[in-house]
Amino acid sequence: MDAPIGVFDSGVGGLTVLRALLSRLPHEHTIYLGDTARVPYGTRSREVVTRYALLCARYLAAQGIKMLVVACNTVSADSLPAVAEALPIPVVGVIEPGAQAAAARTRGGSIAVLGTPATIASGAYQSALRRLAPLSPLVARACPLFVPLAEEGWVDGDVPALVAERYLGDLRRAGADTVLLGCTHYPLLAGVIAQAMGPDAILVDSAQSTAAAVAQVLEARGIARRDGAARHRTLCTDVPERFHGMAERFLGRPVDRIEAVDLAEPAR
Amino acid sequence: MDAPIGVFDSGVGGLTVLRALLSRLPHEHTIYLGDTARVPYGTRSREVVTRYALLCARYLAAQGIKMLVVACNTVSADSLPAVAEALPIPVVGVIEPGAQAAAARTRGGSIAVLGTPATIASGAYQSALRRLAPLSPLVARACPLFVPLAEEGWVDGDVPALVAERYLGDLRRAGADTVLLGCTHYPLLAGVIAQAMGPDAILVDSAQSTAAAVAQVLEARGIARRDGAARHRTLCTDVPERFHGMAERFLGRPVDRIEAVDLAEPAR
Repeated sequence: MDAPIGVFDSGVGGLTVLRALLSRLPHEHTIYLGDTARVPYGTRSREVVTRYALLCARYLAAQGIKMLVVACNTVSADSLPAVAEALPIPVVGVIEPGAQAAAARTRGGSIAVLGTPATIASGAYQSALRRLAPLSPLVARACPLFVPLAEEGWVDGDVPALVAERYLGDLRRAGADTVLLGCTHYPLLAGVIAQAMGPDAILVDSAQSTAAAVAQVLEARGIARRDGAARHRTLCTDVPERFHGMAERFLGRPVDRIEAVDLAEPAR
Repeated sequence: MDAPIGVFDSGVGGLTVLRALLSRLPHEHTIYLGDTARVPYGTRSREVVTRYALLCARYLAAQGIKMLVVACNTVSADSLPAVAEALPIPVVGVIEPGAQAAAARTRGGSIAVLGTPATIASGAYQSALRRLAPLSPLVARACPLFVPLAEEGWVDGDVPALVAERYLGDLRRAGADTVLLGCTHYPLLAGVIAQAMGPDAILVDSAQSTAAAVAQVLEARGIARRDGAARHRTLCTDVPERFHGMAERFLGRPVDRIEAVDLAEPAR
């Protein structure tokens, strides 16, 4: 089926999810939408997150996508049912696939979930993990400085190492064996996070398991695209200076063109 | 004149400007609007910043304010003429008063301007200082991690000290004698900034000089309110959890109540 897969996130972070998708499903057309005019979502209330998420989801649905990937952890945690109800196509978030992967990897130690304050406060990863790995001790930690560090490109050296130690030192000492990166930005800091968590901890990235979940849905519905070159569009609600380089760092490949789009909120 | 003074910012940062105003003009009623649903502005394009700024300015004008203080450095740098043109009342930003104070304090060394990437890229402080202190050498430095550090409450200790050293070490070695805090969040980090800049550097905070500029406008127009208890309202476009404590930390006094308001963008 030739229709594209829609992927959206509050900003550039979701490009790490798109990256996993492109690698797993190289023949699928994609449209990525980053709501860079309203980023970040992770510090906002659930009500505002849902309002912004519906704007993005409806915009992509109007482009004729065959399924929607909510690459944003905050939206997946707070607003996935609202988004799924609003659209007539399959909708996949990052929480459930990420939690499944962490539950499959833990070896009897505790699972540590890292995310933005909103994702952690929502308790979404924690609920999923209590269901999927009921015997595993669970700790959750909000790490608000990781996002600005990743966006600033400070991903190694003394500052991120010290920040990671401050957020994660006690989780290492408590013996976490599995670390779930519950924010799309965190894979860029995987090196310092792994160092702070020690050699016994496995890092689990939701992006990989989300790509697998998308492949499953496409197969189950018989809507996969099996050959041919794929087209990719990158849309953002704001394209500030320095943005292009940041997008390429997150996607891990060149980005031809970023199209600016306007999702003006309806007057109420 | 009994009408309130309107103050707006992209978020909580402008409360440091309101704090200076309340201290200098204790009889003035005020309405503060923080656009917390769209914060931060400092990473967005000029076009989007102007659009958001006009939404805020028009909302406050509709509340019957007698003058408007643009407490946001990004808006003051990028969009002050657009805001001033849109309103029939006096509009004061933070750039010109801050630059005047820095020009008055320098003692022959260089002036260092610190701000968000957008404020620094706009060149607004640099233009004002070249006009006001044409003989002073000038350096400008974007410090994107200072805002999340201030909001996280990490304002002393090893992480902010290391971040400040990384941003400012070479400015200290180059002999800056005056440091202009060109972002409303930075006064919270004044301690580590002062330490990184060394004992010979004077820190200049735009908030103080902006309050003085507001007092001058009120006098010149004969619209000051000279006695009686003042009423203060605090409005925000989003009131996430943990917000109240952050607001009180920035304002330096208790905040009774934060009213949530909606500035939905007009459909276009």
